[in-house]
Amino acid sequence: MASIGKRARQAARVLATTGRAPKDRALQEAASALRRDMAFLLQENARDMEAGREKGLSAAMLDRLELTPARIEAMAKGLEEIAALPDPVGRVMAAWDRPNGLKLERVSTPLGVVGVIYESRPNVTADAGALCLKAGNAVILRGGSESFYSSRAICARLMEGLQTAGLPADAIQMVPTTDREAVGIMLSMSEDIDVIVPRGGRSLIERITADSRIPLFKHLEGVCHTYVHADADPDKARSVILNAKMRRTGVCGATETILIDRSVAERLLPSIIHDLRAAGCEVRGDELVEVIDPDVVPATEEDWSTEYLDAIVAVRVVEGLDEAIGHIARHSSSHTEAIITESAEAAERFLNEVDSAIVMHNASTQFADGGEFGMGAEIGISTGRLHARGPVGVEQLTIFKYKVRGNGQVRP
Amino acid sequence: MASIGKRARQAARVLATTGRAPKDRALQEAASALRRDMAFLLQENARDMEAGREKGLSAAMLDRLELTPARIEAMAKGLEEIAALPDPVGRVMAAWDRPNGLKLERVSTPLGVVGVIYESRPNVTADAGALCLKAGNAVILRGGSESFYSSRAICARLMEGLQTAGLPADAIQMVPTTDREAVGIMLSMSEDIDVIVPRGGRSLIERITADSRIPLFKHLEGVCHTYVHADADPDKARSVILNAKMRRTGVCGATETILIDRSVAERLLPSIIHDLRAAGCEVRGDELVEVIDPDVVPATEEDWSTEYLDAIVAVRVVEGLDEAIGHIARHSSSHTEAIITESAEAAERFLNEVDSAIVMHNASTQFADGGEFGMGAEIGISTGRLHARGPVGVEQLTIFKYKVRGNGQVRP
Repeated sequence: MASIGKRARQAARVLATTGRAPKDRALQEAASALRRDMAFLLQENARDMEAGREKGLSAAMLDRLELTPARIEAMAKGLEEIAALPDPVGRVMAAWDRPNGLKLERVSTPLGVVGVIYESRPNVTADAGALCLKAGNAVILRGGSESFYSSRAICARLMEGLQTAGLPADAIQMVPTTDREAVGIMLSMSEDIDVIVPRGGRSLIERITADSRIPLFKHLEGVCHTYVHADADPDKARSVILNAKMRRTGVCGATETILIDRSVAERLLPSIIHDLRAAGCEVRGDELVEVIDPDVVPATEEDWSTEYLDAIVAVRVVEGLDEAIGHIARHSSSHTEAIITESAEAAERFLNEVDSAIVMHNASTQFADGGEFGMGAEIGISTGRLHARGPVGVEQLTIFKYKVRGNGQVRP
Repeated sequence: MASIGKRARQAARVLATTGRAPKDRALQEAASALRRDMAFLLQENARDMEAGREKGLSAAMLDRLELTPARIEAMAKGLEEIAALPDPVGRVMAAWDRPNGLKLERVSTPLGVVGVIYESRPNVTADAGALCLKAGNAVILRGGSESFYSSRAICARLMEGLQTAGLPADAIQMVPTTDREAVGIMLSMSEDIDVIVPRGGRSLIERITADSRIPLFKHLEGVCHTYVHADADPDKARSVILNAKMRRTGVCGATETILIDRSVAERLLPSIIHDLRAAGCEVRGDELVEVIDPDVVPATEEDWSTEYLDAIVAVRVVEGLDEAIGHIARHSSSHTEAIITESAEAAERFLNEVDSAIVMHNASTQFADGGEFGMGAEIGISTGRLHARGPVGVEQLTIFKYKVRGNGQVRP
């Protein structure tokens, strides 16, 4: 592991002064290699799938693990899309002059070495590797043991792309073992890894948070809220909530709690609940919701802080904007919250006062995604308050330096 | 300590939605209170000074500790200058639309709660408290035991300013004990402190780095380089180097190593060394420097990585730009490095390829300072690679959130 770290740091030094052309070429070549070797990738993936079936992985896990020709094509296309993004490195973020004639610029630079620890989805290998490379970083990938052979085969194509483009293959390395100890060693390599991105379930993130000596780009969970304000458009409320909860229930941007103003609850809730139930969602509610719909499951205190990641939603009636913002401050995981209203004033107050990474007006919380934000792709979503918040795309995988140009100035 | 943390978090929630007027007013009122109570501040400072003399503090330490009417006036003026800075919160950093009609903004928001751990200079109390407040953060201050009474008196005036402006006094709190254990407790309060800024000597920073569970804005040391390129203007080289080394030898931006191209060493070094010696500087050099000036002290390998913070400089002859950049990559602490040259091409390569927080062309490394950068003031300088790098001013004491405005969009 120590040697992987040293080689990554070395590669990062080279990438830091590499222009966009070789990096983009490496990504395009890797995309071609993935398409060319589709049969081999499917064969390696079959080894993982077989072992997974023997281990008794759930159908959902097996689905996440599986590669198909369409998924490999999507991965290749993803690499090409990342190659086509603007270069996030060398961007002049600010420029100003001082009275003494000094000229200052703040210019974006790579972060250095990124460590990515993830679970079973093999496409994370391609996405994370490509995003880090695009931003001029070296990356150390540590995938789940379930996807070992698939990830190794993908990583080898990325390294081939690097070599074809004349870049150090060590810029994208995979930990060559599924040994659990390797994770612990990675988390202690603060000299050679600048930031760790953990991608996975709550237990993985908790373990990594407890053990890491390296800063993390992470979110623990997404307890996301959609708040139906008194001035909501009923049709928007209905369609946005159905989508926010049920489009995909297993994603971090899925709405877990619905808040609704008392003045409109009786009028709007029946159709909202009807749609959710029709889509297979269990509806839990507080006492006021029970009055409107006697079939709701009574919600307990625990429900307000639970990330179901499932077809379950908790509904609470509130007195107005202040109570909604207060409920969110207490129970949200600061990921994504939305307000449905036609009142510009209420919307602005909500967007300003709710302290979450992403705050939305009249839109589905399921838009919480780097691709949907137009950032190209994301390596994860951060609910932290340092460096990056919300989707972590190529721009968030950079930092900056100050360039100062003078003509002999000395400081008085 | 736990109660201090909870109250800081509470105050941070209030500040997060406070406009600039009350924050600026609090700073102006605090400035007035410092001027009004100058006699009391001098009296409290005299207690610290007396205890310091009894403890046998060095003359340099006592000088740092001492308050004078002029220093108190400078502190008050500093608060007013910070009040006059543009509001770093609520700034639209980027705005764009998506094809589906969603409107996105990235807007700056406060970090939350900042912890500042510092040594003897009481003015850090005023600077750090004011910068954090300006950026909408609550702050927990932990000054050195030597300056306890002075810092407490300053902090009380900041809190008075908060109250006069109708803001929670808990926004600026000082740890009410000089007990060393308090630092350890602060470093573990990751729920209630978002970032720690340690200000002090290397041993303080090392201890805090080892113990902290909270991210740090810090630099361990400033092993800064000034490189005299073959195309340097001799007069600029001479005056810039004298200033970079000797203006103040105890600051982190002071040059510790001079690199000079072999082709100009014989012509330029004698006058450079003459000036430095005349100012009281000890000059150490490699073998090639010794050939030019037999009086230099032979430099050892250790010299190239040493932050003297004193009137000592190490000089090395290099073959050219590549060797200079290589030397800096190996030995620098990534703080601040400068090139002296009239060649635009060499300057650009140096500014691009040297991976330090601040890279300079034809200017003194002693300009590495938030005030000199025009950022108003700084809470410290960071050599980290996440969030903030270089001077940490009010802008770096903020993070951002995404505001998304739609008209009912659902995600396909």
